[in-house]
Amino acid sequence: MAIILGGNRYGKAENRIVRIYRDTPRHEIRDLNVSTALRGDFADAYLTGDQHSVLPTDSQKQTAYSYAKEAGVETIEGYGLALASHFVDEFEPIEQARVEIEEYLWDRVSVGGVEHDFTWVRNGQEVRLASVTVEGSGAQRRVWVTGGLKDLVILKSSGSEFHGFLKDPYTVLEPTNDRIMATSLVAGWRFGTTDVPWDERYAGIKRILVETFASLHSLALQQTLWHMGRNVLEAYDDVVEVRLSAPNKHHFLYDTQRFGVPNDNEVFNADDRPYGLIQATAIRDDAPDAGPAWDAYTGLV
Amino acid sequence: MAIILGGNRYGKAENRIVRIYRDTPRHEIRDLNVSTALRGDFADAYLTGDQHSVLPTDSQKQTAYSYAKEAGVETIEGYGLALASHFVDEFEPIEQARVEIEEYLWDRVSVGGVEHDFTWVRNGQEVRLASVTVEGSGAQRRVWVTGGLKDLVILKSSGSEFHGFLKDPYTVLEPTNDRIMATSLVAGWRFGTTDVPWDERYAGIKRILVETFASLHSLALQQTLWHMGRNVLEAYDDVVEVRLSAPNKHHFLYDTQRFGVPNDNEVFNADDRPYGLIQATAIRDDAPDAGPAWDAYTGLV
Amino acid sequence: MAIILGGNRYGKAENRIVRIYRDTPRHEIRDLNVSTALRGDFADAYLTGDQHSVLPTDSQKQTAYSYAKEAGVETIEGYGLALASHFVDEFEPIEQARVEIEEYLWDRVSVGGVEHDFTWVRNGQEVRLASVTVEGSGAQRRVWVTGGLKDLVILKSSGSEFHGFLKDPYTVLEPTNDRIMATSLVAGWRFGTTDVPWDERYAGIKRILVETFASLHSLALQQTLWHMGRNVLEAYDDVVEVRLSAPNKHHFLYDTQRFGVPNDNEVFNADDRPYGLIQATAIRDDAPDAGPAWDAYTGLV
Amino acid sequence: MAIILGGNRYGKAENRIVRIYRDTPRHEIRDLNVSTALRGDFADAYLTGDQHSVLPTDSQKQTAYSYAKEAGVETIEGYGLALASHFVDEFEPIEQARVEIEEYLWDRVSVGGVEHDFTWVRNGQEVRLASVTVEGSGAQRRVWVTGGLKDLVILKSSGSEFHGFLKDPYTVLEPTNDRIMATSLVAGWRFGTTDVPWDERYAGIKRILVETFASLHSLALQQTLWHMGRNVLEAYDDVVEVRLSAPNKHHFLYDTQRFGVPNDNEVFNADDRPYGLIQATAIRDDAPDAGPAWDAYTGLV
Repeated sequence: MAIILGGNRYGKAENRIVRIYRDTPRHEIRDLNVSTALRGDFADAYLTGDQHSVLPTDSQKQTAYSYAKEAGVETIEGYGLALASHFVDEFEPIEQARVEIEEYLWDRVSVGGVEHDFTWVRNGQEVRLASVTVEGSGAQRRVWVTGGLKDLVILKSSGSEFHGFLKDPYTVLEPTNDRIMATSLVAGWRFGTTDVPWDERYAGIKRILVETFASLHSLALQQTLWHMGRNVLEAYDDVVEVRLSAPNKHHFLYDTQRFGVPNDNEVFNADDRPYGLIQATAIRDDAPDAGPAWDAYTGLV
Repeated sequence: MAIILGGNRYGKAENRIVRIYRDTPRHEIRDLNVSTALRGDFADAYLTGDQHSVLPTDSQKQTAYSYAKEAGVETIEGYGLALASHFVDEFEPIEQARVEIEEYLWDRVSVGGVEHDFTWVRNGQEVRLASVTVEGSGAQRRVWVTGGLKDLVILKSSGSEFHGFLKDPYTVLEPTNDRIMATSLVAGWRFGTTDVPWDERYAGIKRILVETFASLHSLALQQTLWHMGRNVLEAYDDVVEVRLSAPNKHHFLYDTQRFGVPNDNEVFNADDRPYGLIQATAIRDDAPDAGPAWDAYTGLV
Repeated sequence: MAIILGGNRYGKAENRIVRIYRDTPRHEIRDLNVSTALRGDFADAYLTGDQHSVLPTDSQKQTAYSYAKEAGVETIEGYGLALASHFVDEFEPIEQARVEIEEYLWDRVSVGGVEHDFTWVRNGQEVRLASVTVEGSGAQRRVWVTGGLKDLVILKSSGSEFHGFLKDPYTVLEPTNDRIMATSLVAGWRFGTTDVPWDERYAGIKRILVETFASLHSLALQQTLWHMGRNVLEAYDDVVEVRLSAPNKHHFLYDTQRFGVPNDNEVFNADDRPYGLIQATAIRDDAPDAGPAWDAYTGLV
Repeated sequence: MAIILGGNRYGKAENRIVRIYRDTPRHEIRDLNVSTALRGDFADAYLTGDQHSVLPTDSQKQTAYSYAKEAGVETIEGYGLALASHFVDEFEPIEQARVEIEEYLWDRVSVGGVEHDFTWVRNGQEVRLASVTVEGSGAQRRVWVTGGLKDLVILKSSGSEFHGFLKDPYTVLEPTNDRIMATSLVAGWRFGTTDVPWDERYAGIKRILVETFASLHSLALQQTLWHMGRNVLEAYDDVVEVRLSAPNKHHFLYDTQRFGVPNDNEVFNADDRPYGLIQATAIRDDAPDAGPAWDAYTGLV
């Protein structure tokens, strides 16, 4: 009945790396939040404080910044693959490296209708996400890549119903044939290959998610999520799984009738808490094992 | 040497009102955060707890929601004027009403290239602001309206210098002829009249602020702010004052040279804190007195 | 190669339930943030929008509030067990119910040295956590309970070293024999039984975590975390696993020497980002399988 | 009708300075967030970008850190006075310097009942505040000091009524003789002198604010605030004005009666938004002019 060291990892979180491409007068910007996490043979550091196998988190930071130039950030997935591979390839004790990236998107400013060469406004629609996990060497090498997005706030003011649900003594909710449906979407998708046109795929997936949310006449947020995920898988063979998490941001019809003021789905209170939280996965039945692809660094190990 | 009741006000803050216009199949959305604050003859409530002159904050809330239908929200300034006037006109003890509004902007979704009738994605570029303060009745009636924005994150990767500054024994900063300049802009502008095409004016002012930031070759954030404010005043006669507050969001060139990796203004660390904070006002020399126009409800009274 | 519905769950997140015990003049307060998540046979809701098996998230909310009185909140773990069991027991389609609770702690106010009966100040040291997962019926019934805490900000200004680490070309960090070590601790512990004196155990575990952080002369945050977890397991047989996640909140010695001002570990800059992030698990080698105990609702399903 | 430069200031915001006193084995900690703002003859920087009169915000930062050793941080008010005076005294163009400080408080850890020499847990009850504004030289020198606190979350589960208020057609609120009253208090107090035992005064004022909130049987939050402020002024001659801002954090009685579950002020929903916001000032009728004492740097200039 011994007490043993279980799961563990360590790294440097939230390196705020901004990469400017300025080889021509028209600059490009990549604005990243990069976290690196290593797993491997680090038991001595935990058990006795012996650091001989520990690459300092500061060294990981230096590498992450330097690789923004050395490997470049043409795409965040490409950058993540280079950085994660470096850690696994160069250091004996490191068995697995995970790189998680948030990318903040920017809109190029126009001046008098002409796009400016080096000025942008931050586009706040959503944050783009990617994770790369690299494990093992040579024939044992395995790689998982996920893309994703968060904070995509989307709302439809019609085309959403909710009725026919299970009822119990605590059920006081009225069924409805017309309501606001709104969420702040979190989505993740797992690739079955690393041979992907990353930026083009991101744009395509976001487009499908948004268009499905808009187009599908919804009987429940559950149904909407499923179709969003399924439509992505139907469109892109290189994606094998889509996971969606969607708070149901309730917009309650405000009772102005008691003041003699009609309110035909026109005035709502956007409530903060509580909120419904609906989660769904669409996956190919022959998808390879997810392995550590979804082991987010922000959670407990 | 008595102790007396000084400045005071009370109201209901952060009513999250969403107004949908659905008179045609193509809906419109106005997504607001509305706060109301009243000043007047409320000493009894403070001194003895006697509420006879106090319109409950709950009643202010009900009115704010109901007015989203009764007065409508064609523009936030128009809605704010109606709501603030109501409070001053209807209740003897209320001498001044202030309505502060944040508006969250939405982009209409396109599906297959066609704009959708009732689905939007939240546009996160900036939050639009307005305040309306109404005071007194009849000939004593006075009204102040301000517009504004916040959270406009804007960055230029060139066209910014900083040198020639005062030096003291604590000055270790190196002068530079080329740096990143970035800020998360807060701007407020005061109108000299209420006869304004509100939405058109908002769009125009935002355009001028952004275009000036982009176009002006900057020797300091101070200089950039001044020209942003001045250009707004030069463009629009109905604006009498512009106030700007701009954190200098430092992007420090990362030292990758020590790893043999050149870095010609290409890789930066986007730092969180501390940050420079620069504030400026451009005002007409014949501007009427600001009165309570800038007494934000979020501060101490 | 069909596309199928994978992992899914749904529920109501962040019910802000405050329970006052007022059976005697001396009140007690329990201040909770409760989330409920259900798994089961809900495929129809996702695939076709048919809600016949779906207990609305609103009904879950009503039950959560009503159970604060019906079952009471003597302890959050006891309340969670009652609520989760209710969902699994009462509804055929529900196969698993998870209840996650944050508890905000309050200090009783003293007036003139005497404890007040019904006034408290929020104690901001940490947030207490619990999760209860209930699955199956009768002989198939399984239950997992975890406790935890977050936002415990703890700092030692000496007694911490870091040296002897792996070096590579990106390693510029200087070894140190005396540094500030600070973190904002997240901890979770899994119980092997439900026969636990919950509040007493919470207090004991927090005490061990804090005392170990203080007492252990640290060679690395890794070592400190391991000993914190191990000491909890050694003290309490009913705990089978401890998971710890600890940002290394860097305090960098400020270079005031260049101004002729000595700084012998006296003036530091508390940096925001990036930060080291160290995670560790201490577990009994005969611990039962964790099952869904750690499947936090906040992550992707 | 020229356009002119109006109010302006600039500085370095949110220097996160941690000062450890370690002259004896028993360390002490002062954990600060310091902002400096300068006013003066800086028109050239704004109008033409000429920086000859501008002390860089980076130099202000260096000074703020160095002064944590040079002047020390025995009290935050003392430190702020030294730092603000330095800026005004040393630089011709600087006419006014303002230093704003947030102090995060820490509780010393006990191990086995014995206080530890150098380990603390962050006390999250409230954040302590101070501002120092220094203007002019020699006989023209003027100084304003304010203290304060924020984020003090305080709740009473009885002893609070609200009735007898003004009614209009939008008034649907029910009067009550027993409700929860809770707020997250922001308080500021202005001193009439700089000869003050700063830490002792802070402790005393916080105690009075908390004890008054607890003890006063409340007919309205307005009344409670007034008495909190007045009681501070009655206790301390060196304080001339107290400003209070208090969100009324609504706790709504939850309707469990419809499920046959009685709820005698036992189960509440702690709502987020909207909230009442009540502000009051207690001031001596012979208080000197507040001047710039309340011109918070976070607002528009």
